Amino acid sequence: MTTDFTATKRQFHLPEGLIYLDGNSLGPLPKTAAARVAQAITGEWGELLIRGWNKAGWMDQPSKVGDRVARLIGAEAGHVVMGDTLSIKVYQALASALQLAPKRRVILSDTGNFPSDLYMAQGLAQTLGADYRLKTVAPEEVLGAIDDTVAVVMITEVDYRSGRRHDMAALSARAHEVGALIIWDLAHSAGAFPLQVAKDGADFAVGCSYKYLNSGPGGPAFIYVAPRHANLVQPALSGWLGHDAPFAFDPDYRPAPGVERMRVGTPPVLQLAALEAALDIWDSVDLHDLRAACLSLGDRFIAGVEATCPTLRLVTPRAHDQRGSQISFAHPEGYAIMQALIAQGVIGDFRAPDILRFGITPLFIGAVEIDGAVAALSQIMTSGSWDRPEFKARAKVT
Amino acid sequence: MTTDFTATKRQFHLPEGLIYLDGNSLGPLPKTAAARVAQAITGEWGELLIRGWNKAGWMDQPSKVGDRVARLIGAEAGHVVMGDTLSIKVYQALASALQLAPKRRVILSDTGNFPSDLYMAQGLAQTLGADYRLKTVAPEEVLGAIDDTVAVVMITEVDYRSGRRHDMAALSARAHEVGALIIWDLAHSAGAFPLQVAKDGADFAVGCSYKYLNSGPGGPAFIYVAPRHANLVQPALSGWLGHDAPFAFDPDYRPAPGVERMRVGTPPVLQLAALEAALDIWDSVDLHDLRAACLSLGDRFIAGVEATCPTLRLVTPRAHDQRGSQISFAHPEGYAIMQALIAQGVIGDFRAPDILRFGITPLFIGAVEIDGAVAALSQIMTSGSWDRPEFKARAKVT
Repeated sequence: MTTDFTATKRQFHLPEGLIYLDGNSLGPLPKTAAARVAQAITGEWGELLIRGWNKAGWMDQPSKVGDRVARLIGAEAGHVVMGDTLSIKVYQALASALQLAPKRRVILSDTGNFPSDLYMAQGLAQTLGADYRLKTVAPEEVLGAIDDTVAVVMITEVDYRSGRRHDMAALSARAHEVGALIIWDLAHSAGAFPLQVAKDGADFAVGCSYKYLNSGPGGPAFIYVAPRHANLVQPALSGWLGHDAPFAFDPDYRPAPGVERMRVGTPPVLQLAALEAALDIWDSVDLHDLRAACLSLGDRFIAGVEATCPTLRLVTPRAHDQRGSQISFAHPEGYAIMQALIAQGVIGDFRAPDILRFGITPLFIGAVEIDGAVAALSQIMTSGSWDRPEFKARAKVT
Repeated sequence: MTTDFTATKRQFHLPEGLIYLDGNSLGPLPKTAAARVAQAITGEWGELLIRGWNKAGWMDQPSKVGDRVARLIGAEAGHVVMGDTLSIKVYQALASALQLAPKRRVILSDTGNFPSDLYMAQGLAQTLGADYRLKTVAPEEVLGAIDDTVAVVMITEVDYRSGRRHDMAALSARAHEVGALIIWDLAHSAGAFPLQVAKDGADFAVGCSYKYLNSGPGGPAFIYVAPRHANLVQPALSGWLGHDAPFAFDPDYRPAPGVERMRVGTPPVLQLAALEAALDIWDSVDLHDLRAACLSLGDRFIAGVEATCPTLRLVTPRAHDQRGSQISFAHPEGYAIMQALIAQGVIGDFRAPDILRFGITPLFIGAVEIDGAVAALSQIMTSGSWDRPEFKARAKVT
C-alpha cells in the first residue's frame, strides 16, 4: 500500500463530530478548493476579465481537466472533455452511438439504471422518432438481452440503489459480438475504484465529478469517446465550442477533431476551478489501494450491521467483484431510519422505495468512522428511536 | 433618473487604469461575488455537505434566481429557470417549439444570428430528420420571410456583430399571424435594456448571464417558456430535475409542471451563487435609466470616433430604436487595431471578419471612460501603431 489515507483525509474539511458516508452523492470539500475558486474569481475574472479565456487558460480547461479524469478512468489522454451535466453527456453519447448502428432501433438498459439516464433516452427516442425505443430488463438479464436487434447498450456500471456492479469487459465484449455499441455511465465508478474504459471496450463513457471526485455541488460532467469513433460521430448538441474553429464564426457547423466536438457552450470556469483543486488530491492516490481499503471497510460495515441490526437486509452483493463502493441495506422504514441516523451525525442517504445507502470512501473514511456508524445505527434500531413524526416527514430532496 | 450609476460602478471591481468596453462579452466582477461564492463553498458545501440541497436551498436556486431574471426581461414570475448553457437552452426551446407546429419543417433564422444558435438548429434538424431544415436570410429580410411554411422563427434580438436590434413585437406578431412560433435569444439584450418578452409575444426566450448580467465566466443560462405553452411541451432533454417527482425515481419520465420541466441535471451551485451576487446590483437599477444612459454614451462614442478615425466605418445603426447596447465599427485590420487598443488598456473585442466591438454598459462605464477610449483609439489610428506583428498574431480566443 503506497497511498497514505490519513494524509488524504487531512486534505478535506469535515465538520467536527460528523461521520460522512455520502461521498457517493456529494463529495466533501477539499481544503484547497475555496482558495482555488477565489483565485479564479478575484485573480482571473476580476483582473483579467475577458482576457482570462486566453491568459488564464479557461478555454482549454475542459480538455486539460479531462486529461486528469482520463487517467482515473483508464482512458487514453486527449479523449475526455468536461462540461455540462451528466444527463446532457448521456444524451450526447447516446445520439452519437445510435449513428454508429444506423439500422437498429433498440436502446437496451436495465431497471437499475439511474432514472435520468432512462429519461434522457426516452427524450432522445421521441425526438428521433422512427421507432427508436428504450428497452429495460433486470440488471441480471442484461447480458442475455444483448442481441443483434440492439443498437446501443446503455449501462450505469454500479447500481445507484443496490451497489451492484456490472462486468464492464464482459458486457462490452458481448455488445461488440452482436454489432452493438456500449455506453458506460461511471457516476458511481469514477474515483470509486480502478477503471480501464479503453481496455474494457467502452465505446463511450460518461460520469459526474461531484460524487467520488469531490468537485462540489453542480460540478461538471465528463465524456469519453473511444478514439475509433471520435472523428466519426456528428454531435446532436452541436454547440460552437465543439466547432472546429469557434472563433471563425462560420455559418455552418463543422465538428472539431476528436472528443473536442462534444463540447457545447461556455465552460463553467468556477466549477472547473473547484474540480481542479479536488483532482490534486487524486495525484497521491493509487486506485488499487483505494479499492482494497474500500472493500475491507465495506466488509467491516456489513459485518457490524448484520451483527447488530437483524431487520436490515443487505442489498449489495457480498462478492467483491460484484459490488461498487457503496453498501446498501433495505428496510420498509428506511427513510425514517436514515433521518434518525442523520440527526445523530451519521450521514448516509435514502433512495426510494426502501434503500439506506452508505458510501464507503477511504479518502476520508476509515475504520473509526465505520465503527461509529455501526454503533449509531445499531442504537437507533435497537431503541426504535427512528419511529417519530419528525423523521418520517419527507424533505424535498431525499 | 432614479438610478445612481456612480453607485453601481462602485459595486464592481475594475482594474486600475483599465477602460472595460467588453461587458457585452464577459461582465466585470461584482465586489460581493467572491464572498458569496466563498460562503457557498465553506459555509454551505463544507458544513452542510449533502444537506445543502435542502438546507441551503440549492435545489430551488434555479427557479428563485430565474424569478429575478424574469423581472429583468419582462417575463411572468415563475416562468424562467436557470441552468446549462445558452446553446443547450436554444436546443430545448427549439425542440419544444417545433412540437407546437407539427406539420411544418422550416426553422427560420438570420445570417446575423450567433453561430452557436444556428449550429444547434442544424444538429436538432439532423437529429429530427424528416426534412426539418434551417433557413437563414439577411437580418433585414426576416419579416418578409415569415410565411406559413415556417414552424419556428429563431432570432437573436441584437446582432452580436453589428449591434443591430430586431423589433421583437413586430416579428412576434408576424410569426403568430402565420401560425409560427418565435424564440428570442436575449444574449445581448438581458441587462442591456428594458425587455417585455411576455407583452411582446415571445413564445420562448433564452439567454446567458455572464454578459450584461455579470455572473462570471461560465455562468448559467436561462429559459423562458410562455405560460400558454409551458404545460404542453414535452422536453427533448428530459432530465431528472425536470421530472414531476425527481426523488420518486420513477422509471418513466413525466414532466414537472410549467417551466420547471426545462431543468435537466444538477444545477451549478457555485456559478449560481456568483449570479445571485451579481443580481443584487440590479435591484437598484431602473432599466429605462440604463437604456437612456447607454444610448447617450453610445452617441458620444460614435461622434468621438467618427470625428477622429475616418477609416473606421460605423456598422451599428444610428437610430436608437434599431440598436442594442454595443457599438461596432468595421476595419479590414480590425483584429490588429483591437489588440493595439487592448495593449493601451482599453478593452473591447473583435469579431471576424472585420468588426471592432465596444460594449456600452452604464453600470460601470461613463463619459470619462468613453472619452478615454475615443482618445486611445484615435491615437492608434493616427499613429498607425496597430501595424505591428505582435498585434496581428491571432490568439486562440478572439
